[in-house]
Formats: sequence, C-alpha cells, structure tokens
Amino acid sequence: MLNTSKRVNKLIASPIRKFLPMVRAAEKKGVKFFKLNVGDPDIFAPKEILQGIKKYGNKNIPYAPSPGISKHVQAWLKYYALFGIKLKEENIVPTIGGAEGILLAMMAVADVGEEIIVFEPLYTSYKGFAAVCNVKLAPITLRVENNFKLPAIQEIAKKINKKTRALVVISPDNPTGKVWSNQELKNIIKLARKNNLFIIADETYREIVFEGKPKSILIFPAVRNNALVIDSLSKRFSAPGIRLGALVSYNQKVMRAILKIAMIRLSAPTIEQLATVAILKNSKKYTSKIANEYKQRRDIVNDALKKMPGVLVSQPVGAFYQVAKLPVKNAEDFIKFLITEFRHKNKSVLVAPLEDFYVTRGLGRNEIRVAYVLNIKELKEAMEIFKKGLERYLKK
Amino acid sequence: MLNTSKRVNKLIASPIRKFLPMVRAAEKKGVKFFKLNVGDPDIFAPKEILQGIKKYGNKNIPYAPSPGISKHVQAWLKYYALFGIKLKEENIVPTIGGAEGILLAMMAVADVGEEIIVFEPLYTSYKGFAAVCNVKLAPITLRVENNFKLPAIQEIAKKINKKTRALVVISPDNPTGKVWSNQELKNIIKLARKNNLFIIADETYREIVFEGKPKSILIFPAVRNNALVIDSLSKRFSAPGIRLGALVSYNQKVMRAILKIAMIRLSAPTIEQLATVAILKNSKKYTSKIANEYKQRRDIVNDALKKMPGVLVSQPVGAFYQVAKLPVKNAEDFIKFLITEFRHKNKSVLVAPLEDFYVTRGLGRNEIRVAYVLNIKELKEAMEIFKKGLERYLKK
Repeated sequence: MLNTSKRVNKLIASPIRKFLPMVRAAEKKGVKFFKLNVGDPDIFAPKEILQGIKKYGNKNIPYAPSPGISKHVQAWLKYYALFGIKLKEENIVPTIGGAEGILLAMMAVADVGEEIIVFEPLYTSYKGFAAVCNVKLAPITLRVENNFKLPAIQEIAKKINKKTRALVVISPDNPTGKVWSNQELKNIIKLARKNNLFIIADETYREIVFEGKPKSILIFPAVRNNALVIDSLSKRFSAPGIRLGALVSYNQKVMRAILKIAMIRLSAPTIEQLATVAILKNSKKYTSKIANEYKQRRDIVNDALKKMPGVLVSQPVGAFYQVAKLPVKNAEDFIKFLITEFRHKNKSVLVAPLEDFYVTRGLGRNEIRVAYVLNIKELKEAMEIFKKGLERYLKK
Repeated sequence: MLNTSKRVNKLIASPIRKFLPMVRAAEKKGVKFFKLNVGDPDIFAPKEILQGIKKYGNKNIPYAPSPGISKHVQAWLKYYALFGIKLKEENIVPTIGGAEGILLAMMAVADVGEEIIVFEPLYTSYKGFAAVCNVKLAPITLRVENNFKLPAIQEIAKKINKKTRALVVISPDNPTGKVWSNQELKNIIKLARKNNLFIIADETYREIVFEGKPKSILIFPAVRNNALVIDSLSKRFSAPGIRLGALVSYNQKVMRAILKIAMIRLSAPTIEQLATVAILKNSKKYTSKIANEYKQRRDIVNDALKKMPGVLVSQPVGAFYQVAKLPVKNAEDFIKFLITEFRHKNKSVLVAPLEDFYVTRGLGRNEIRVAYVLNIKELKEAMEIFKKGLERYLKK
C-alpha cells in the first residue's frame, strides 16, 4: 500500500476550518453568517502597506536574501527600539508569517522525541508543527474558571525532565486573551535559566492589549540568552495575507541555527518586505487605534456572553479572542446546529470549538473561542443572534 | 548548556550563499562581479504579474484559504490543461514557492528514519529539508563524464529497502540541466509501482527545455496513484520573490495529507495568488520566449567552457544551469581566488561549488555549477573573464 506518513496521519484538520464545507452549503442557500471563528481581522490594513504594494517599481521580482532585505530588517530594528529593545540585524530573521516562525523555532531547539512545555488551551499550529516535527508537547492546563491564571512555578517545574528543551509563552495569548504579568514572566525566566531551557515567546499580538502598555519579554536582561521571540505582522497591521513575521533573539547560536533553516527555504516574500518598511518605522498610531477598537469589541462580546445563563467567561486583556464555557455537552454539536439548523432572519453565527486547542484529550469539549473580527454594530447583532441560537439549542 | 538541535547543527550553510560576506567586502572596494552563482533570473517578470500586483484593490489583506484562492487554483487548472493534464481543484494545493513544496512532500510521505532515493548531484534544499525532517536520502550518483545518464534500472532498484518511501525525479534538473526522457520516466514509474513508492516529481523548470516540448510526468496514466508533483512559478515566470508554487497529485490520500500540513501554516501569499491568475491562464508566449533565450545562453556557456583546456562539461537540455568539472583540486579554493584575488579590469565572476549538491561526501570537489542568469552580452564577457581567471589560477 502507498501510505502517507504517520506524522501527518495523526494530524487533525484545522478546528477553525473543518466546518467550511457545511458553511459553504448554507451560504449557497442564502444564509448569512457572522464569522467569529477565524482570527482574520476585518480592519483595513494600514494605507502605508497598501501603497507600498502598489509602489513596487522593479521589473524583476528576485529572491530576497535569506536574512531578509536589509531595509526591511532595519525597519524592524527601528520598530523594536520603540519598546526600548536594541537589536542588530543579526538578531532577526524575517519569516513567512508567525506560523513559519513556530516551525523554525521548534526545529532549531528540539530534536525528535524531545519536549516543549506549553500552556493549554493554545494556538493550534503549535500542535500541528510539533506533530510533523516529532516533538512532544507537555501541556500545563489553565482553566477558564480561574481566568487562565498560571499555577505555582513549582507545578510548572514538575513538567521539566531531561528531554525538555523549551517553554512556550504566548502573550497576549490566542485563544485566551491572557497577557502575562511581569511577575509571571520573571518567574518563568528564572525557571528557564535554572534548567537551561529556551523560552519561545510568541508576541504576535504584542500591541493588542487593553491594560498597561505593549511590551516584549526581551525587556528583561535576564532572558537574553534564553528567549527566542516569534513575531508577526499579521495581526498588528491587520494583514495576515502578506505572510510576514520574524524570529528575534540575542542568542547568536540560535540565530545561526534559524538562518541555516531559513536558507533552505530561500526567502520571505520580496514585495511585502519592501511594502512594510514605512509602517514598521512608524507603527504606533495605527496599533493604538486598533487596540482601542478591539477593547470596545471585547467589552461587547464579554458583556453579552456574561449575561447568558450558564455561560462562563474569562476576562481577556489582549489579542482579540474570548473563551467561553457553554452549558452544552458538546460545543461542536452546538456549532453544527448553528451552521445547519438555526437561523434568525436567515442569519447565524460561526465560532470555533475549543477542544482542539488543548493538547490533553477530552478537555474543552464545552468551550468555544469567539474572535471579535467584526465591527461593533455587526458584533452586537452577532451576539444577539448567538444568544438566541444558544437558547434554542438548550430547548431542543 | 543551552544548545540548538542536532538536526539543525548538522546543516551546512547554503553553498550558494556562503561566500556572500567575501563578495560584499570586494564589492565595497569597487569590484564588479558577474553573478552566475545563484539561480535568480535576470529576465523581467511578465507584465501581467507586475500589473496584477499594482491592481490589488482590496483594503484588507486577508489570509488566503489553505487550499488556495479558488481563482488562483482555477488558473492552475487551465495552465495544466495546456499540457493535456486534467485536474480538479482537489488535486492541487498552492505552496510558498517550490521550496515549501519539497518540505510538505517529504513530511507527507516519510517518517523519521525512512528513506527517499535521489539522484545526485541534486538541488541542495532536498538535503536541508531531509536533515530537519530526519529523513534519510539514499543517493544514486550520476556523472558529468556520462552526461548524467541514469544507470540501469536494476541498479536503482538495489537502493530500495523496506524503509524506502519515495524516489525524487527533478526534470528539467537543477544543477545538471538533464531532462528525463520518456523511456527513463516510464522505467522509474514501473519501479515505483512495483515497490509502492511515491515519485516526487519536481518540475520547477518544466518549460525551460531546449529539445522537444515541455511536459509533466502526469501525462503517463500509470503514474497517477504514485506521483506527487512539485511545481513552482519562480523560474517559469522569472519571479522567485513572489514565493508561489504548488503540490499536484491525483492521489487523494496524499493531497489530503498535504492539505492538513498546509492548514498548520495557514496560507500562501494572498496578493501574489491573485496577481498570477492572468499569466497562469496564458503562459505559453512568455515561457516560449524565455526558453529560447536560455537556449542561446546555454550555447554560449557550454561552448566557452568546452574550449577551455582540461574542462569537462555535460550537455544541458533544460533549466538554466551548466555543470563543469575543472582541472583544479578544489573548486571552492578556486572560487575564493576569483572572489578575493583575481580581477580583470576590476571585474570577476561568481559560480557555485558543486560539492554540496552531492549527498555522498567527497564527490564533486572539482566541479562547479554555472547559472546563466545574465544577458548574452554580459554572459560572453563573464565567460571570457572566467577563462582568464582559470588560466591565472592554474599558473599559480
């Protein structure tokens, strides 16, 4: 038999995308869905990027150098300086979105059978890339009831064994909206240093915070040798389709490793590297505006869900996601009901089931993630319809 | 100690790119290099792509769907129909360049410790991706003396063991310029079917052929279940910076596997998928023109090298590379000499050492690859200067 590999066979289809065929069938019949299932921002990209794309003037479209186009990398350095972080070009390699950053980071720090500690629920691509790289994720479960608070550092320390190579810290976090406090970061840095572990710090949503100022783990001098930051322009500039991110580290050994893998895949997109120079150099106005917008949306979603009987929510402080525990047995069944049965004036709502965001099997079965990627008016209507849908489902 | 992974530590820096610092130092002193080392086409991209980029009219830059933007995939189907190959959307997944196609194909067909048979010298990214995926490449050596002719099929069969999962066929080939004959393809298909192996058919350079017509392995009905084609728009449309390629197969199982990995990394660039629709639907005029141009260049490079005493060349029939065996002990030393010592009117030439294109250690030490990515006038001058450089080196 001609079989595909075990590493791929064990992958699940994207939990966010697996309902697509059902959705398309309903849409063909005229159903309008409010799509709160995918983290694809509705907000316009900065005009600097849109103009930058149009301004591409070269008649060749050559490979970018693997370490990035120098102008683009220099713009990143200026961007990081805004947060008090001084970098050299050698500290950064542009990646094809934050997603590729996850893959390269895992390959650079962990061999087959080695382990990386993660906090679940977590962004699903970590699970997928770990599977294809044959790296084991060791999960520490955080609970919505507890507002996704970390356990005591001793509890985290128990997960460390001789195969452990790194800890993943996603802050602001997808899907929980958690933002790690300085004290939490300091504790994890201490743990990482003591045990010679890398900290893979995913700061994709850095500026989208609703309390305090945007920050990076790199502000802590103690982390300099251990941190490998995964960065992305997708959410910050509402432009996931440009496929640009970066890996950032003061650790020269890890940056050399990253660059060696980057050379195999040649380069990140040329036109987009050039088109993002201007906004990277002057990002604050745009990112402040969208953070404010997402904060208002968070309030709408959070308030609406809190008022629904039996629904339990956490309090997101960043990113643009809300986790909710529903008074249902199986959130996927409820979502299927929203897609295939329930309509209010021929409209319905899409949200993502949370089960697949957990590494531990069986967790999160009655939980969902709501991505607030619609404007305030639509979001209000969507939450009204969601409420009606839940009521109807519970009466079934 | 905080160490990077073994799989990355065993990677070598790109053979094509490792001389970059030396080159930059010489350039700063005013030396002009004719760059025949990187396969980065000098030819202008089709105006359809350049205009397509400028015409991007959406104010959002959303993720593309993981299976590709439908208009883009439909354009691929139309492109393939030109070669008599009927595909459905489910037979193709756009990738981030041909490079990502290699990675996804390896992950989809081979587990850790399993083997893939390749013909060396071969495109170096196969070695790199195999290393980070912990897949073993089993090389069959082809010789420049023999114009890179395949050995008898029984010789190839000897490499197959119970861990073998696939054979790689790159045609037209980088670095050799070899184009597999129909008979060679039929033989390998028979072997693959008999042993339940995938054929990973890399057709990045499909249209750049100097004898006969462009073709795909998919024209052979017998290969339908076994072939997984790696395709790319980089060379065909002189646009490697757009980072677009595709994986194509009639095997539904392998396409489902590919799509599952594609979902983890989300999507290929949005703007470029839209900007390449027009040229994919109407590619022939552009590709015929560049194939003709490369043929003329092949003649110049091939003739010039053949006349140099002690230089042995093969006869490329496609792609835009020429392999040559030089009367030197170590081609890398000679290349360093060209970069740091030799100047003719303050000019010199860059070529790629071939050693790292081999899987078997120690082979190719006195061989080079010349990429003919300069116009005819410059190419003539470059070959003159190369000749003088070699003469000077041999007199040292």
